[in-house]
Amino acid sequence: MSYSKSDTDVDHVQKQFQDRFFSGAASGVIDDVKLFLKGTVDVNMKNDRGWTALMFAARNGHTNVVKELLQHGIDVNMINSTGQTALDIALFWNHSDIAQLLNKPDKDTNPDKNDSNYFSVNLLNRCSEKRKDKTWLRNKQLASNTRFILFHNLGALCVQVPQKTRYKYELARVEMKDIETTLRSNPDCVFLGLIQEAKHISLTFEEPGLFAVDMSSLTEEELIALVPKSILLPSYPAAMQLVPSEAGIFAEARSMLAWHDRYQYCPTCGSESRLEEGGYKRLCTNMECRSHNGVHNTCYPRTDPSSIMLVVSPDGKKCLLGRAKRFPAKMYSCLAGFMEPGETIENTVRREVEEESGVIVDKVEYHSSQPWPFPASLMLGCIAYATTDKIKLDEEEMEDARWFTRPEVVQMLTQQHPQGLFVPPEQAIAHQLIKTWVRRTANL
Amino acid sequence: MSYSKSDTDVDHVQKQFQDRFFSGAASGVIDDVKLFLKGTVDVNMKNDRGWTALMFAARNGHTNVVKELLQHGIDVNMINSTGQTALDIALFWNHSDIAQLLNKPDKDTNPDKNDSNYFSVNLLNRCSEKRKDKTWLRNKQLASNTRFILFHNLGALCVQVPQKTRYKYELARVEMKDIETTLRSNPDCVFLGLIQEAKHISLTFEEPGLFAVDMSSLTEEELIALVPKSILLPSYPAAMQLVPSEAGIFAEARSMLAWHDRYQYCPTCGSESRLEEGGYKRLCTNMECRSHNGVHNTCYPRTDPSSIMLVVSPDGKKCLLGRAKRFPAKMYSCLAGFMEPGETIENTVRREVEEESGVIVDKVEYHSSQPWPFPASLMLGCIAYATTDKIKLDEEEMEDARWFTRPEVVQMLTQQHPQGLFVPPEQAIAHQLIKTWVRRTANL
Ligand SMILES: [Zn+2]
Ligand SMILES: [Zn+2]
Repeated sequence: MSYSKSDTDVDHVQKQFQDRFFSGAASGVIDDVKLFLKGTVDVNMKNDRGWTALMFAARNGHTNVVKELLQHGIDVNMINSTGQTALDIALFWNHSDIAQLLNKPDKDTNPDKNDSNYFSVNLLNRCSEKRKDKTWLRNKQLASNTRFILFHNLGALCVQVPQKTRYKYELARVEMKDIETTLRSNPDCVFLGLIQEAKHISLTFEEPGLFAVDMSSLTEEELIALVPKSILLPSYPAAMQLVPSEAGIFAEARSMLAWHDRYQYCPTCGSESRLEEGGYKRLCTNMECRSHNGVHNTCYPRTDPSSIMLVVSPDGKKCLLGRAKRFPAKMYSCLAGFMEPGETIENTVRREVEEESGVIVDKVEYHSSQPWPFPASLMLGCIAYATTDKIKLDEEEMEDARWFTRPEVVQMLTQQHPQGLFVPPEQAIAHQLIKTWVRRTANL
Repeated sequence: MSYSKSDTDVDHVQKQFQDRFFSGAASGVIDDVKLFLKGTVDVNMKNDRGWTALMFAARNGHTNVVKELLQHGIDVNMINSTGQTALDIALFWNHSDIAQLLNKPDKDTNPDKNDSNYFSVNLLNRCSEKRKDKTWLRNKQLASNTRFILFHNLGALCVQVPQKTRYKYELARVEMKDIETTLRSNPDCVFLGLIQEAKHISLTFEEPGLFAVDMSSLTEEELIALVPKSILLPSYPAAMQLVPSEAGIFAEARSMLAWHDRYQYCPTCGSESRLEEGGYKRLCTNMECRSHNGVHNTCYPRTDPSSIMLVVSPDGKKCLLGRAKRFPAKMYSCLAGFMEPGETIENTVRREVEEESGVIVDKVEYHSSQPWPFPASLMLGCIAYATTDKIKLDEEEMEDARWFTRPEVVQMLTQQHPQGLFVPPEQAIAHQLIKTWVRRTANL
């Protein structure tokens, strides 16, 4: 089969693939389904009514297809335009063995709930043990298979990806020769890790290295000129358009570069500090400084833990979503706040919910975590169980907070809310927490 | 009953109380048990064979006593000197309803697993919304019911508690008049929060305030002279002797003061910074500094998330414990390491375990968290499930790492290991993780 490369034609062929994939799932032709899963289609694609292959297979009771799709990592949490998950559909049509397959606790169908979290997957091997070896690092920088990703005022240089997906960009990768002049005047760069073909095979340390470089000494135009057809992706929210496997690398690189950008002086004595250990340390240049002794953290990159929580009402039928004053119009999301010194995750959740909404939380269940590199947060996602439902708003921070029923939340997830209310996109852990609750309450 | 205050006599009376408490539990005399639980005895006390009241009640099938003890928060994870928990004993003696009471998942018997974690309970209401109100803060400092806790080079001024328990010290509390001279020359102090009589009752904001003050400008002798019979508790591990309800306050105060101690200069421009918002912010004194614009973290206290994990072998029958080179002789503990920018908790666990021991981890289950104020860590405790068991040691950091069977771990927990190996004390989250695994594997 040959086809022209015009967008419309590609769309047309994609549509044909999708139709055949879905009809294979709907009719239980497992070989067809397997064929298309070999990379031709995005396993999670939806038709115009929001149906996935999993929903078709669940509708018609094809247990073997459901198993195959689960093995390919299909997202069991997806919701069609009438607000049903594949589990809802299986239950409705009485396919109890499929319902059982789909109803396992999150951690069994998916060994790592973080895998659904944007910025959470990073396939580099960080090789932290090599960071102290200056000779090794220098040689790795010079190795012919080493690549560099480039930033400008914390925005990343990117290239568009050829295939059409929801995610549009990859990080541009250049070779040493492309940036030699910049590196000669400032050789500081961050060693992100080695690119491993597969996880858990023994490293030879000859694997290609990946470094991040701050190119802010060039103009934007000069930087873009280095890579054909590249664009400079400003930071948030533009970075949400990276393909997911690149997002974790971006998260590591951006939070490291943001640290070097803001921590060029020793906080203990005010002297200049300098980059060490492949960028994972900054040493004070004042040899008399207390930072050269004792246990402290001033030399190391900073990560700010923050709790974010989906609060469930005492009767279990509603969830609490709020609007901070700085939110885009009509968006509601989970409550959240930074952890303070001396707090546990669970106590931060209780404090923040009470401060922002007046609601009292008892049990707190950790769900998953997500790096959020603006500049260096770690989002700790939780489901929190309220014992009261009276809301008393923190008027300073919050514009609104209210209890939403499941049907209303489904409308907000699927952009069908009558008042146009919506929740954050899937790249936000808030979205994943909300979807988890919707899925767990399938029987409400 | 009257008794002299000599230690031996007090010990003797305590012993009598204990005996009557235990025999009440063993014989099912619920009123006796209730009487002693009203503060006369420590609910978790053990006899010389390591038996608790819960074990006696479980041995003899007294369901009502078990329920009563659980309501008083007795620790179901405790182990006697032959390595049995109360659950083991109930199962052995076939008291299935008691076994059921004791065998609930952790989160059901205890809504917050952190409550077993030292430093994790802090009953102050932090009132973060009041921190920006300078007048309110100043008035609170001057209020007659306000108290101050005092530190010297990050060690806390303490007083011994009258009753005899495993925990010996409370934080000394002084009034404004006791430290007026110091506060006049440097009024900086950290507002820790308001002392609430009970959780979740509406605050009047007239509740007593608690502040932390760095008194390092005095000599140790001058400081101790301020409070009769006080002692200056040097930091780690001496601080582990605080009564648990004080440990959370200590954690908040010490990590805040350590931050002010090490972050007196702006890391972005090197100018001096000054304390604001009751100590929860530091502002750069250079008004041209970039830190006055944009989204960044240099003004806020720092918390360093760290993963700590009990690794379970592929067959579920052994757990992995290691010795870092800096450990006390014969101590083995969970593996652990700081999170890096761009990592999820689960990925940090996998990376650290592979780096330190060569073992590959798949599923990671979050257990609980613990503030660790030396200087400002947040320990994220996890149970990790290995898929390989071959150990390849990180020779740089680790002295040893090996798989231990349950009976051997029980010997280490109860100080009965033939080679004298032991695990960290109960104040360490590692201890809680190890005990959780021992409890879950009661049937091995
Ligand atoms: Zn310094
Ligand atoms: Zn500054």
